[in-house]
Amino acid sequence: MSSAAGPDPSEAPEERHFLSTAEAAALERELLEDYRFGRQQLVELCGHASAVAVTKQRTVLVVCGPEQNGAVGLVCARHLRVFEYEPTIFYPTRSLDLLHRDLTTQCEKMDIPFLSYLPTEVQLINEAYGLVVDAVLGPGVEPGEVGGPCTRALATLKLLSIPLVSLDIPSGWDAETGSDSEDGLRPDVLVSLAAPKRCAGRFSGRHHFVAGRFVPDDVRRKFALRLPGYTGTDCVAAL
Amino acid sequence: MSSAAGPDPSEAPEERHFLSTAEAAALERELLEDYRFGRQQLVELCGHASAVAVTKQRTVLVVCGPEQNGAVGLVCARHLRVFEYEPTIFYPTRSLDLLHRDLTTQCEKMDIPFLSYLPTEVQLINEAYGLVVDAVLGPGVEPGEVGGPCTRALATLKLLSIPLVSLDIPSGWDAETGSDSEDGLRPDVLVSLAAPKRCAGRFSGRHHFVAGRFVPDDVRRKFALRLPGYTGTDCVAAL
Repeated sequence: MSSAAGPDPSEAPEERHFLSTAEAAALERELLEDYRFGRQQLVELCGHASAVAVTKQRTVLVVCGPEQNGAVGLVCARHLRVFEYEPTIFYPTRSLDLLHRDLTTQCEKMDIPFLSYLPTEVQLINEAYGLVVDAVLGPGVEPGEVGGPCTRALATLKLLSIPLVSLDIPSGWDAETGSDSEDGLRPDVLVSLAAPKRCAGRFSGRHHFVAGRFVPDDVRRKFALRLPGYTGTDCVAAL
Repeated sequence: MSSAAGPDPSEAPEERHFLSTAEAAALERELLEDYRFGRQQLVELCGHASAVAVTKQRTVLVVCGPEQNGAVGLVCARHLRVFEYEPTIFYPTRSLDLLHRDLTTQCEKMDIPFLSYLPTEVQLINEAYGLVVDAVLGPGVEPGEVGGPCTRALATLKLLSIPLVSLDIPSGWDAETGSDSEDGLRPDVLVSLAAPKRCAGRFSGRHHFVAGRFVPDDVRRKFALRLPGYTGTDCVAAL
């Protein structure tokens, strides 16, 4: 009625672009527990949108870690194949998780090649592929947790001259501060999944896409997120 | 080497557009068992593509049955909401299946209205909505199996003058022969899921879309399916 009875401004936080690690985890919990999204469903939505975001180069190397980020990478590779691109996967530390195993089977049966090792001679990678997708480490996953082959892969990816696309956060970055371990990557493109994590504020590459159209409006408002407008039926938008 | 040693033509069946009921079931089994697709994943892929196919009218009534076709309808409604359309759902006979319950929760929490009954006065529906999606009966499901409210809904849908879009098969049609029960619908648009069922050969409406880009090439070849070419990252194609 009177403006004095209006909402307390301190309860209507200003909208912002980025989520802290705790907020990102709370948002995912909200989708899984309250909205009853399945993990299979969310990984499918994120992987599809990631593939749409990287359809720039015909030959794509997708490097997958053993956690959820790697699962999204596997889905991304499958959709790239469906879009008639030529994905290759390097997935050195395989998760025993059923979802990862099923996503791996889908890729294998669709004849997507899996590299048994990543050449340390970077020129070979630069010449063989047009683009590399970094699906190695997601938020809250430290390089030390994913085993030697993944850590060595990150060291190689740092040296590449072809474009690098990181899913959700650049591998090796702290999701919160953006400070990076010595293996932290410097991607040209960042594809934020669901919503940008705080470290994305320090991303200085060429393109930043958000693949989070599936996030319900109420959740976006609850986390006071200002997100880009999506066009038509697009599942990604540039920030 | 010599042409006489070429493949036996009888072993290379001519490609065709439609699948029999048994072949459609075998194709789905192949995806679920051999390729390890999850049901959640397939329903998500089909529902997303269905939503893309029906983005013509702003206000859409989605009528969902209790079987898998209805689950695809629920996902279709969610994506329509995400695309900023105005879906409304009529889902009179709710499945106890966990996937259906979770998909229903997603729609409810995204504030998609659920009708508690379908007006028998068809003019009310014609005026309130721009388009109706028929996600009532899929292949192999008889009108008698889904309960009175669904059967009565089909009788109402038959009388509408607004465009009708059927998912996979027009409700009430025999998937094999295309012969229909007295409640069989006459949709303007048919969205075949995965691949067209044989009855689609008798579809005489305006547009026939296929939402099956996720079907691996080897599976398409195994079932000797001639499918439309998809463009760019599109998930549906007109047949």
